[in-house]
Amino acid sequence: MDKKNDAITSRDVDFAKWYTDVCRKAELMDYSPVKGFINYLPYGYGIWEAIKAFADPLFKEKGAENVYLPMVIPMSMFNKEKEHVEGFAPEILVATVGGGNELADPLVIRPTSEILFSDLYKRLVKSYRDLPKRFNQWCSVVRWEKTTRPFLRGSEFLWQEGHCLFETEKEAVDNALEMLEVYDRIGRECLAIPFLKGKKSKHETFAGAVATYAIEALMHDGKALQAGTTHYLGQGFAKAGGIAFLGRNNALETPYQSSWGISTRLVGAVIMVHGDDNGLVLPPMVAPDQVVVVGIRVNDEKVQAACQDVFARLKKLGIRAKLDIDPAKTPGWKFAEYEMKGVPLRLEIGPRDLEKGEAALSIRFSGEKRTVKLDDIERLVPELLRQIQEGMYLAAKKRLEASIVDVETIDELKEVLAKGGYARMAYCGGEECELKIKEITGGGTARCIYKENIESGTCPVCGKPATVIAYFAKAY
Amino acid sequence: MDKKNDAITSRDVDFAKWYTDVCRKAELMDYSPVKGFINYLPYGYGIWEAIKAFADPLFKEKGAENVYLPMVIPMSMFNKEKEHVEGFAPEILVATVGGGNELADPLVIRPTSEILFSDLYKRLVKSYRDLPKRFNQWCSVVRWEKTTRPFLRGSEFLWQEGHCLFETEKEAVDNALEMLEVYDRIGRECLAIPFLKGKKSKHETFAGAVATYAIEALMHDGKALQAGTTHYLGQGFAKAGGIAFLGRNNALETPYQSSWGISTRLVGAVIMVHGDDNGLVLPPMVAPDQVVVVGIRVNDEKVQAACQDVFARLKKLGIRAKLDIDPAKTPGWKFAEYEMKGVPLRLEIGPRDLEKGEAALSIRFSGEKRTVKLDDIERLVPELLRQIQEGMYLAAKKRLEASIVDVETIDELKEVLAKGGYARMAYCGGEECELKIKEITGGGTARCIYKENIESGTCPVCGKPATVIAYFAKAY
Repeated sequence: MDKKNDAITSRDVDFAKWYTDVCRKAELMDYSPVKGFINYLPYGYGIWEAIKAFADPLFKEKGAENVYLPMVIPMSMFNKEKEHVEGFAPEILVATVGGGNELADPLVIRPTSEILFSDLYKRLVKSYRDLPKRFNQWCSVVRWEKTTRPFLRGSEFLWQEGHCLFETEKEAVDNALEMLEVYDRIGRECLAIPFLKGKKSKHETFAGAVATYAIEALMHDGKALQAGTTHYLGQGFAKAGGIAFLGRNNALETPYQSSWGISTRLVGAVIMVHGDDNGLVLPPMVAPDQVVVVGIRVNDEKVQAACQDVFARLKKLGIRAKLDIDPAKTPGWKFAEYEMKGVPLRLEIGPRDLEKGEAALSIRFSGEKRTVKLDDIERLVPELLRQIQEGMYLAAKKRLEASIVDVETIDELKEVLAKGGYARMAYCGGEECELKIKEITGGGTARCIYKENIESGTCPVCGKPATVIAYFAKAY
Repeated sequence: MDKKNDAITSRDVDFAKWYTDVCRKAELMDYSPVKGFINYLPYGYGIWEAIKAFADPLFKEKGAENVYLPMVIPMSMFNKEKEHVEGFAPEILVATVGGGNELADPLVIRPTSEILFSDLYKRLVKSYRDLPKRFNQWCSVVRWEKTTRPFLRGSEFLWQEGHCLFETEKEAVDNALEMLEVYDRIGRECLAIPFLKGKKSKHETFAGAVATYAIEALMHDGKALQAGTTHYLGQGFAKAGGIAFLGRNNALETPYQSSWGISTRLVGAVIMVHGDDNGLVLPPMVAPDQVVVVGIRVNDEKVQAACQDVFARLKKLGIRAKLDIDPAKTPGWKFAEYEMKGVPLRLEIGPRDLEKGEAALSIRFSGEKRTVKLDDIERLVPELLRQIQEGMYLAAKKRLEASIVDVETIDELKEVLAKGGYARMAYCGGEECELKIKEITGGGTARCIYKENIESGTCPVCGKPATVIAYFAKAY
């Protein structure tokens, strides 16, 4: 595709610069006065709203109930959870003054809410009859990050955190796996992003979890992005939190826990998976504007009326449509603008089109251009949006699959990771070997496990028998 | 209505105790480890979700765009806004440590976001072409309150804050008035709460605003509750924030501002307007469970199947239905439970009902009981929910209107406010007289203005000519 937007760095010249150019020029975000904290502007927040609107009913279908817990955790409680503290202490923001007085027990601004959920469940869960509990909250969390990038890593970000409690181990494991499938579906049907999904290696498992599962996406620059995780937490957190219930046999038992989360990082994934040198390319399901109707020669009253008519008809179909009949800007400027903003479908209506009862149609994702009969709008536009959504998913899937290379040696691994994409390799599964791989490849890590309990092959690092096959990649 | 729930204090015995009993027993909330911060449980948060789902599209219809701004404001910026600081300083929570280091510029956890919106608009708005801007955010804010009550006043609460910028004064005033109408509609169509609405007296006007408008509701105990406000802010905040734009005549101009907000306080209003001695009474539009289907003799497989069938059919209609065929609890216990939780409609199905192809139906709000043909569910239930919603609104409206008494003297005013309800009275409109009224009546304040610029009557406090007629009440 021709590069039309000089304000945006080419991806191949400097992908990081391309990314921030797109975030800024497409008005997805704005930097706030506090380093690492961003203003989510309507166009960027709109993407998150669309994701939330798609995901929330799926969570509820799986029995999740939404709650809201405080944004503050007493330092005394926070310090009790040792493993937790080690993971988050370097990153916490602490409030020490409230209502003009020094606080006896300072308050940690939540970096995540395990502690508060444990505290709540301790009071709510008394009997097996109170189980399962599947609480979820949509909120923001704060982590004092040194290096931040819009949507990918910020000192405050928006997310959902599901924290569930079950009577049996099986239910908790099943929940972690079931929610991984839900996340995968969000990718497939909403973000048009195919994920590699699977268990994390020991080294990459969440501190305190028995097993972590992840969805991993491939960015245009060949790097992986962890886009969401689900955890089977066993009984560790519940024991530490003192949660116990009277079981069916009238004895006190400890429940089994799972948790799962996705965040505004998904907005970053959408940008980096689909974007091109002209800017954003948005899948219809998350696009704040799915169709833009642009008038050509808008001083012509007939053109204005036709644009307004088409706009109203699209709205009536429930389509997020935008109307642009602003006489102050040229059609050329507008085309470049809406391409940069990644609007999936553009309809142009001018006097000549009107004479023929037509509109010119342009598809952002494929670059395809054609004409449509105005009478055909109702039939054609929803169908095209569906096709674009599917086409974008399939194209991304093709790229993902083409990027996967089976390797057996460290040299092959290095070669694949230097080029970008995923290397699928058997290894011993040990943490030490993973650390060595990271060093040797300059940042390559096991993203998720492809196959467990394999019985042939050798670890290319330590030479011991291989136990798992994993996807390796450099990651954000 | 008979009082069936001994765990709930009668309203007339102790209204405050009744309120917290209902909040706790109906599982709307739970106290968190930090005083003044509550856990919003699914049943309470569900009410807020329903309000949000109703309100957000109405805001968007009026041109509002959702954004998300950081939860922290640098202290140095906060201190610049003098009037603001005076209003909020005693209530702020301040973070002083981030990532293990003392912060050079401490961070105020947002008590409201005027400062951050000003900072954002300063960058975004350069020309009259960038106006209007109508940004809104759904978030939580923190105010370090000494005396707190669930939903009514908390150290952290959920709200929306709209902050708008216009080229002309008229647009900004119109927006404040237009959003007041939107809030009134939310009361009428969603909460089943009639509001008195109007301008605030000078004394009750938001610090820094030119005019404040409010919606005021009447609680069962005869006290008023300010349920939402909209402000016309003039140019003051914009000037202080350094926001200027190039106008149509190519000269720098200052924009005009409005703002508007409603909060989880509305959940408290729903409880206190509609509840009775048996607990909650929820209007269908906000009820997390609109209909509960209770099986009688649930060991009978036919009963189970019929309950499941009715439940599925209700779900199919888009009704928030709940199914209870738990054999471990008696029907009597369940009836009391769902009455306490204020479920608008209950359907009971037992073997005898089934023989006749019927269900017993019970309406929480009116206490009405009757039978319905199972074949009639699809036709009848949505219609009944509509009637309940309307009936609850009309009953509350009748109570509100009956509470309003026109008075002319301080003695009459004292009498009305002692009994509870609104006194409508002419006065000079001055702040001093309002303070005296508050003292004399033991807390009575001007809730909102009924009529401005009147030309007859005398202020009963200072004896000067009256200029306005206002609604007076004791308020939460």
